[in-house]
Amino acid sequence: MSDALIFDFEEDKVRDECGIFGIYGPGRRVSRITYYGLHALQHRGQESAGIGVSNGKDIKVYKGMGLVTEVFNESILKELKGKIAVGHVRYSTTGSSSIINAQPMVFRYYWGMAAFAHNGNLVNSNELENKLGEKGAIFQSTSDTEIIANLIARCEEKDVLSAVKKVVSTLEGAYSLIIMTQDKLIAVRDSYGFRPLCLGDLDGSPVVASETCALNTVGAKFVRDIKPGEIVVIDENGIDSIFIENRERQGLCVFEYVYLARPDSNIDGKNVNLVRLELGRQLAKEAKIDADMVISVPDSGTSAAIGYAQEANLPYMPGLIKNRYVGRTFIQPTQKMRDLGVRLKLNPVREILNGKRVIMIDDSIVRGTTSRKIVQLVREAGAKEVHMMASSPPIKYPCYYGIDTSSREELIAAQKSIDEICMHIGADSLHYLSLEGLIKAVGLPKEKICVACFNGDYLTEIPQYHEKIF
Amino acid sequence: MSDALIFDFEEDKVRDECGIFGIYGPGRRVSRITYYGLHALQHRGQESAGIGVSNGKDIKVYKGMGLVTEVFNESILKELKGKIAVGHVRYSTTGSSSIINAQPMVFRYYWGMAAFAHNGNLVNSNELENKLGEKGAIFQSTSDTEIIANLIARCEEKDVLSAVKKVVSTLEGAYSLIIMTQDKLIAVRDSYGFRPLCLGDLDGSPVVASETCALNTVGAKFVRDIKPGEIVVIDENGIDSIFIENRERQGLCVFEYVYLARPDSNIDGKNVNLVRLELGRQLAKEAKIDADMVISVPDSGTSAAIGYAQEANLPYMPGLIKNRYVGRTFIQPTQKMRDLGVRLKLNPVREILNGKRVIMIDDSIVRGTTSRKIVQLVREAGAKEVHMMASSPPIKYPCYYGIDTSSREELIAAQKSIDEICMHIGADSLHYLSLEGLIKAVGLPKEKICVACFNGDYLTEIPQYHEKIF
Amino acid sequence: MSDALIFDFEEDKVRDECGIFGIYGPGRRVSRITYYGLHALQHRGQESAGIGVSNGKDIKVYKGMGLVTEVFNESILKELKGKIAVGHVRYSTTGSSSIINAQPMVFRYYWGMAAFAHNGNLVNSNELENKLGEKGAIFQSTSDTEIIANLIARCEEKDVLSAVKKVVSTLEGAYSLIIMTQDKLIAVRDSYGFRPLCLGDLDGSPVVASETCALNTVGAKFVRDIKPGEIVVIDENGIDSIFIENRERQGLCVFEYVYLARPDSNIDGKNVNLVRLELGRQLAKEAKIDADMVISVPDSGTSAAIGYAQEANLPYMPGLIKNRYVGRTFIQPTQKMRDLGVRLKLNPVREILNGKRVIMIDDSIVRGTTSRKIVQLVREAGAKEVHMMASSPPIKYPCYYGIDTSSREELIAAQKSIDEICMHIGADSLHYLSLEGLIKAVGLPKEKICVACFNGDYLTEIPQYHEKIF
Amino acid sequence: MSDALIFDFEEDKVRDECGIFGIYGPGRRVSRITYYGLHALQHRGQESAGIGVSNGKDIKVYKGMGLVTEVFNESILKELKGKIAVGHVRYSTTGSSSIINAQPMVFRYYWGMAAFAHNGNLVNSNELENKLGEKGAIFQSTSDTEIIANLIARCEEKDVLSAVKKVVSTLEGAYSLIIMTQDKLIAVRDSYGFRPLCLGDLDGSPVVASETCALNTVGAKFVRDIKPGEIVVIDENGIDSIFIENRERQGLCVFEYVYLARPDSNIDGKNVNLVRLELGRQLAKEAKIDADMVISVPDSGTSAAIGYAQEANLPYMPGLIKNRYVGRTFIQPTQKMRDLGVRLKLNPVREILNGKRVIMIDDSIVRGTTSRKIVQLVREAGAKEVHMMASSPPIKYPCYYGIDTSSREELIAAQKSIDEICMHIGADSLHYLSLEGLIKAVGLPKEKICVACFNGDYLTEIPQYHEKIF
Repeated sequence: MSDALIFDFEEDKVRDECGIFGIYGPGRRVSRITYYGLHALQHRGQESAGIGVSNGKDIKVYKGMGLVTEVFNESILKELKGKIAVGHVRYSTTGSSSIINAQPMVFRYYWGMAAFAHNGNLVNSNELENKLGEKGAIFQSTSDTEIIANLIARCEEKDVLSAVKKVVSTLEGAYSLIIMTQDKLIAVRDSYGFRPLCLGDLDGSPVVASETCALNTVGAKFVRDIKPGEIVVIDENGIDSIFIENRERQGLCVFEYVYLARPDSNIDGKNVNLVRLELGRQLAKEAKIDADMVISVPDSGTSAAIGYAQEANLPYMPGLIKNRYVGRTFIQPTQKMRDLGVRLKLNPVREILNGKRVIMIDDSIVRGTTSRKIVQLVREAGAKEVHMMASSPPIKYPCYYGIDTSSREELIAAQKSIDEICMHIGADSLHYLSLEGLIKAVGLPKEKICVACFNGDYLTEIPQYHEKIF
Repeated sequence: MSDALIFDFEEDKVRDECGIFGIYGPGRRVSRITYYGLHALQHRGQESAGIGVSNGKDIKVYKGMGLVTEVFNESILKELKGKIAVGHVRYSTTGSSSIINAQPMVFRYYWGMAAFAHNGNLVNSNELENKLGEKGAIFQSTSDTEIIANLIARCEEKDVLSAVKKVVSTLEGAYSLIIMTQDKLIAVRDSYGFRPLCLGDLDGSPVVASETCALNTVGAKFVRDIKPGEIVVIDENGIDSIFIENRERQGLCVFEYVYLARPDSNIDGKNVNLVRLELGRQLAKEAKIDADMVISVPDSGTSAAIGYAQEANLPYMPGLIKNRYVGRTFIQPTQKMRDLGVRLKLNPVREILNGKRVIMIDDSIVRGTTSRKIVQLVREAGAKEVHMMASSPPIKYPCYYGIDTSSREELIAAQKSIDEICMHIGADSLHYLSLEGLIKAVGLPKEKICVACFNGDYLTEIPQYHEKIF
Repeated sequence: MSDALIFDFEEDKVRDECGIFGIYGPGRRVSRITYYGLHALQHRGQESAGIGVSNGKDIKVYKGMGLVTEVFNESILKELKGKIAVGHVRYSTTGSSSIINAQPMVFRYYWGMAAFAHNGNLVNSNELENKLGEKGAIFQSTSDTEIIANLIARCEEKDVLSAVKKVVSTLEGAYSLIIMTQDKLIAVRDSYGFRPLCLGDLDGSPVVASETCALNTVGAKFVRDIKPGEIVVIDENGIDSIFIENRERQGLCVFEYVYLARPDSNIDGKNVNLVRLELGRQLAKEAKIDADMVISVPDSGTSAAIGYAQEANLPYMPGLIKNRYVGRTFIQPTQKMRDLGVRLKLNPVREILNGKRVIMIDDSIVRGTTSRKIVQLVREAGAKEVHMMASSPPIKYPCYYGIDTSSREELIAAQKSIDEICMHIGADSLHYLSLEGLIKAVGLPKEKICVACFNGDYLTEIPQYHEKIF
Repeated sequence: MSDALIFDFEEDKVRDECGIFGIYGPGRRVSRITYYGLHALQHRGQESAGIGVSNGKDIKVYKGMGLVTEVFNESILKELKGKIAVGHVRYSTTGSSSIINAQPMVFRYYWGMAAFAHNGNLVNSNELENKLGEKGAIFQSTSDTEIIANLIARCEEKDVLSAVKKVVSTLEGAYSLIIMTQDKLIAVRDSYGFRPLCLGDLDGSPVVASETCALNTVGAKFVRDIKPGEIVVIDENGIDSIFIENRERQGLCVFEYVYLARPDSNIDGKNVNLVRLELGRQLAKEAKIDADMVISVPDSGTSAAIGYAQEANLPYMPGLIKNRYVGRTFIQPTQKMRDLGVRLKLNPVREILNGKRVIMIDDSIVRGTTSRKIVQLVREAGAKEVHMMASSPPIKYPCYYGIDTSSREELIAAQKSIDEICMHIGADSLHYLSLEGLIKAVGLPKEKICVACFNGDYLTEIPQYHEKIF
């Protein structure tokens, strides 16, 4: 709507697609609690935010483009009264009409209403959509959620819960999902457990959320992770749990630890921050370099850099300063000013870097474009040597489970050798954490995590084409 | 979203639900032309506005809450490039999430995309929705449009046109409808012809619109009214026309002439303004009163008042002045100031009214609340006598064909005799135009117009209950 | 801020500069009353709106660009608590930073605070500004108000009232002015009485306003017009009145009757609507034409057209229909569509005009550009003859007293003879009301009104140059 | 304007009042460069942003409430064409009308126009304002800038530069000031040098800015700090420099190093980040505690915490995670949820803190309210001991030089002993850096910095009362 071009410095990061939150809390201000919960999950999506509430009879929803704090105000929250709530944040894609894809999506069924909030990506969505389309289903959005909602409608089971159970067993891919009917809150985690989903308790009211940081923020106690393949049903009778299927091979996305999740969250029993520190320590064991200091690319590389520095017994120094105010409507530098580029967001501290041999740690390298610019910035600030390190292995394969990596053509590690990448980004040396080191640092059994973006070992069939029609 | 209460002086009017516009114009700026066309139809709906375009491959749509001039700007129009366009304006209802009901609605079918713009109301929507729901359809809006779109998807005809033809024959009620597929513009007018729909030509490009004023505004020539039961198909092969069914009894809504349409429009061969002048003349023949002048309740009663004055040979005087700036976000007077009421929008001219016997003409009386206040205003300004007249008969029955009259309980003429109404509004006398007079003034055969709101003679079965679920 | 060009159909009208309103009402919701008062004066200015309140100690002000209903909402009004209020509406000029010119302007003086709302234009502003500048005054706006405020600050009288009295006697030009100090409301009308200003009473609370329609709207009784040269002071001691000077020759702007004021207002004892009807009747006496009907250019020509029709015993017909929804952000037709021009706002009714000899009445003709287009529209709708008439004389001279006529070069009557104008606009004949007819219709003594724009007989010296510096 | 209460977690921080930026760059896109420069200075003020440009003849300005990225867009920048530009960011205060205080302020003088951007606070503003008021000056804002602008207007020197020189020698207090006339850019730093101001060079175009980070961001080279008491004049003849007076005792605000400035800036020869690391190291020398780890209150305590950890040979751990998305319109928790408080912005990492003896470092403690909550959070996360430390001495005295500390009554160190504060915030121990340690860490001679907020040793007379009238 604005003629201002949006300049996104962080374009060279993988991006999560969503954060979800739900509460079953008669007598509580459920929309307000959801507001704070979504706010804690804001890092999982900044494009749109939405909250739906059920008062037992009706479901109301309010959604908008922008951050949680931009979309909602006091009077909107006041109008969203109910005993159950479900909320969603979604990341920023282009397209002026994308409000149509904002969640929660509310559907009127023959038997009543339901609101859906989904984090993940189905692998067989095209197939499912085509089947549904042949049978007369039509679609208003490009969201997998609409597919799931349609499947449930066509399931012959009359009881919602049975329908959900039956339908999800036909879905292939990642789906941490919260469904709110007029009187139930249903949370589903796919049988691979690709995306996190946890259960909490706010003084007796059950809460579900993508990450534990949302539980902490609203003052709820962590109860447990929802298990891969589990359907949790919350209603006036309490909490019940049923299982879709029990897989040996599971696949929590390891990138949740590397970059996506908030460091204060725990996922499947592991604290993200501790994992990141350990990634750095592991990296220090694998890649020993004679240097004067360790710096990080803030903020994503900071914990690993601290861990590295501790293990390597080198000083960790704040050598790059990030401008915290880059907003969603930043005006792009003109072609002539393009060399400003990264500097609008990151500034090196010459007094720290000048004449020094520097190890610089980022969580990952996707396309390499930003790394190249940062290496150059650090050199211009006087660094004698710049040793670039990533606290994860080279990303060689696209993700089909809800993460927006670039396409394979853009993944630098799919195209070039490490030496070539090192040359491309202009570093003195380049080191990636090994896949073994990564798994070791995470500390979960190998068969419980998905590392397909590093080794191509997808847990499901992958879509032959992954093109969206509209 | 705002805490400002909206004060709607015109609450005591019937309200149309929509205006629609479409153009098939390769090589033209179709979204811009649609913008001007919708602007000319703004009186048919002020809640939301939307324009969809097809470039032959993709359909893009942009919709928003508010007036056409508020929703669109240059850069939005520039992004809406295409060779076909369809637009819609919708009237103001309550509900924060009502963007979901804004049109055109775009649906992705198995065979491609289609955008729908609809003016009217189905009588059998609950029945159709229930049937669809049983077969697994789900609904995101409360709009009849979504029902029609779903029916088309489930129709076994593979060809869109055949499907449209088959589906519309199952619809009962009012539906002037424009459907844009990737390469066609299809206009449908229900077999009763409840709502107007006309065909124009803009230097070779076919245009369809709710009213001829939209043709004039964009510089198109009027070609003809689309006939009741006609489906007009426009594509690269030109204009084709097929018929659903040919009814003897048709039912153009007579209220289009009385109040809804713009006076400069022609509907089914009759100019609205001329009809309104004739309504006044007819009223003068029926209700002769010894008075000093004729005034109107502006703007809706003005043409009839002029006609009355001419016939009765009395001076027409501008005795009530309307504030033209009452916006959508007017702050409501507090309870204590409530007596300001109507005065914020209408002010009587004492110098004209003082000591005079006044005939005051409005187009209709719905609930009587506003009439009462205006009579009081005119008396306070010194009028010796106030003779209230309506240029239409008493409204005794609710409309099921796309007009928002109040419910039967609120229709004053459904509850009270004319004498009681006269007493209620405090007039010296009260006269309505007779139904015969109305029909005579309109000049169309009785069996071509719907006057059900006056005599309860509905053309279709009426819904047993007309409650919306959400 | 928007890239949308603003298309102003009414560019060919003279424009007033402001409307002002004030109330001294301890115990009342003075900001809310002022909101309604300004709303009634909205026709006098649509660029910006502002309200200032004094609680006896502090003065708070809120201003914004746009209509009264756009600038204010409930929560803003709630924050504007006080016992005295002053409000202002200003017309639309260009320039993104023009909020700096919005009124009321609040100034902190050595002795306290004061808010100013001004309607009019000083003739000696450049001279005064230069003098002040030489003595060290600086200016943030281009408004005369800032000049007046500075003069008061430099006046040696310590008492505000004496200062105001002394200062206003040095001002040359038009200034209907409301000054609110912390405990007083002071209303001043210049000694020529160029702009209207009246006094009302709202159940004991004095009210001042540009026009009586604002008194009516807020439910106040009209007390009297404030006299030319009068200063009315309202405070806890009641209402007092002092006089600047008593001129024989006064000069109420006659254009207030012709076009500017709302028809339901009374100014200096004359009802605007009655005057307009009389202008039409007078015109009928002066310009008799054999024709079939009288139509008006809505809305400004309507009352005169009705008067003309009555006097000439011809039918008045609604032959041109105005689109009431043209907003402030209308998107301009592209060059190619430019011929749409006037049609976006006015549509002729062919069924009324076709084959007819038409007298078309507008209140005035400024540049002739719009008249030309309308004549063409009416012809295209089939009118056999179009006789254009203006209910005022040819405008030949620019106004220096607060009205934005075009510059002399643009005033068509300053450049061409009536015959030439008639040819230019393409009418069959063209008639203006004579100056004598105008004065007669107004009914005020010749020496009480200003008709300088018609005859160049300015009441004051006129500025040698009238250029603003910034 | 919104009914949403604003929740400001960082209320317990001192706050700077402004950032300023200017460029003299014929042939360059000066407004765009200023946009990026202001963006780099956004931490110095988030209330309003403004940019003024001169094209040699006219000065245009655009200002708005909000962040730089919210106030400006492409089309606004495009309209701000010129060869000189000056920009300003201002911090957030309350008051709906505060746009009146936004800068740059533009004044029309007898001799031309000038735009002012000011960072600092005059100590003798009341005295100066009273003197000006007595002589007939009036004020529209509460900004010192308006006082300075008026003084210049009344100075008898006809030459702007002489006037500036003469006027600034009468000002007492802090004033880093940029004045743009139609053809000059004038930068002034007060003779104490309270606020930073530096000179840079962008490929030949002189640039001035509050901090060097703004130079880096726009790609300019640092030339030198502007000296206390220096007036730098930039015009077509190049750069000239004159001096107001040369004081022995100067007083750069030490809080610029402690908290206010961006860590990547250099001020008066010292890098802020290095100073902060050194503050931590110095603290480690003064306050040795037997602990397991050092954590910081992010982000303000982080550099000092890293320095402390290095010196104390303890691990620095990311034990508190900050939500980076708290926006300006965050909805405040209700009274019942108030205990959420700090948790909405900070979340402790139990897995890091549990069972540990923790040293927690913040840059300063102002009112102690937030420290108390954070200590509690850290304890709840399982920390066995919490040793709170501030990398600056106790703040006992208010600042009169442009920093918004709380009033003396609210400064906890002005009311309580260190032991009492420790008890109040619930820490196991509390240590402040000594004043000597602070000065040592900064590394500038004692007589060059102002530490009045710590020891009350003000460099100027202090105002007897510091109340603003409006």
